[in-house]
Amino acid sequence: MSLQQFSSSLLENAVNEFAKLPGIGRKTALRLVLHLLKQSEYEVEVFGKAFIQLRSEIQYCTVCHNISDTEICQICSNPSRDHETVCVVENIKDVMSIENTQQFRGLYHVLGGIISPMDGVGPKDLEIESLIERVQTENVKEVILALSTTMEGDTTNFYIFRKLAPLNIKITTIARGIAIGDELEYADEVTLGRSILNRVEFTNSFK
Amino acid sequence: MSLQQFSSSLLENAVNEFAKLPGIGRKTALRLVLHLLKQSEYEVEVFGKAFIQLRSEIQYCTVCHNISDTEICQICSNPSRDHETVCVVENIKDVMSIENTQQFRGLYHVLGGIISPMDGVGPKDLEIESLIERVQTENVKEVILALSTTMEGDTTNFYIFRKLAPLNIKITTIARGIAIGDELEYADEVTLGRSILNRVEFTNSFK
Repeated sequence: MSLQQFSSSLLENAVNEFAKLPGIGRKTALRLVLHLLKQSEYEVEVFGKAFIQLRSEIQYCTVCHNISDTEICQICSNPSRDHETVCVVENIKDVMSIENTQQFRGLYHVLGGIISPMDGVGPKDLEIESLIERVQTENVKEVILALSTTMEGDTTNFYIFRKLAPLNIKITTIARGIAIGDELEYADEVTLGRSILNRVEFTNSFK
Repeated sequence: MSLQQFSSSLLENAVNEFAKLPGIGRKTALRLVLHLLKQSEYEVEVFGKAFIQLRSEIQYCTVCHNISDTEICQICSNPSRDHETVCVVENIKDVMSIENTQQFRGLYHVLGGIISPMDGVGPKDLEIESLIERVQTENVKEVILALSTTMEGDTTNFYIFRKLAPLNIKITTIARGIAIGDELEYADEVTLGRSILNRVEFTNSFK
């Protein structure tokens, strides 16, 4: 559907705004806009303002840099969580993924990305300094590195490991191996190789 | 991804608003919201306001009821279009579809729906009275009925036909038949039957 067919520049504007979002083309954008037109003026105002308010009022936890409504996020301020264990992740989506597993009761540290010289992201652009400060000043006993298994993820892991090593704490990384439900036949060689090298005692695997 | 995992009610709100749109689930909604968070505050304000402004300032052309920024829409106010031919359509999407064919130079009349007793939509809920008034007061020579080929569409066609018949103008309906590129083998019987009954002179079909 080409642009000049719109009889209204307001309509055109609204369609263009939706079409800027990832994965939304002009046809879908038009469908969404026509849907909004059928809603009440109040509902559309609530819709539009939700994003404006989110963007202008959003805060990041000063401790872990996770998205938050308050200065200290709900996770960091929760006394029933294990404040001695900090899980280092790339972004807030990873926090949500790990929270959804309901297997982790410690705190997080959101780096805001990973070291990637190709994209011009260096250690200074990430929340690495604040992680080290946090480990030095707070009673952290274990740092779990939970970054992607990519070249950039490994680089970041090593960088953080070298910075933390002198601080005499336990540094771990999440287990790599064959995913639950996967068949060995289809696993890649590197993963299968690592899963054999890093094999665990049979009873441990059910912990 | 469940709800309680969001560490921010602002984030939760924004995700909920996106997820209200048709065809957008909570996972996609979250992806879109995280995309917006990466944009500048100004860009997000422009985004949100585009919809609020559209909804509050949108007008409908007083002549054809198409969506418009002005009292009379661009199509109705264009002197180079054929003001003697009016094409009756169900909604503004149909106007766009027909405009995209670039085969029609007349004006439109948007009914705002079709007669559907099941959904409680009667002739009074549609812009049928205004169509008749328009034909009576303006120099309209032909009304083209371009509604869906459904029971409701046919009912609406007949209703309008009976109302317009005494006014002594040409009333036509868009051609039904085998779509260009379709194979006869897969056409339904009713369409194929109609396309034989309403066959056109061979030369006409290339006009």
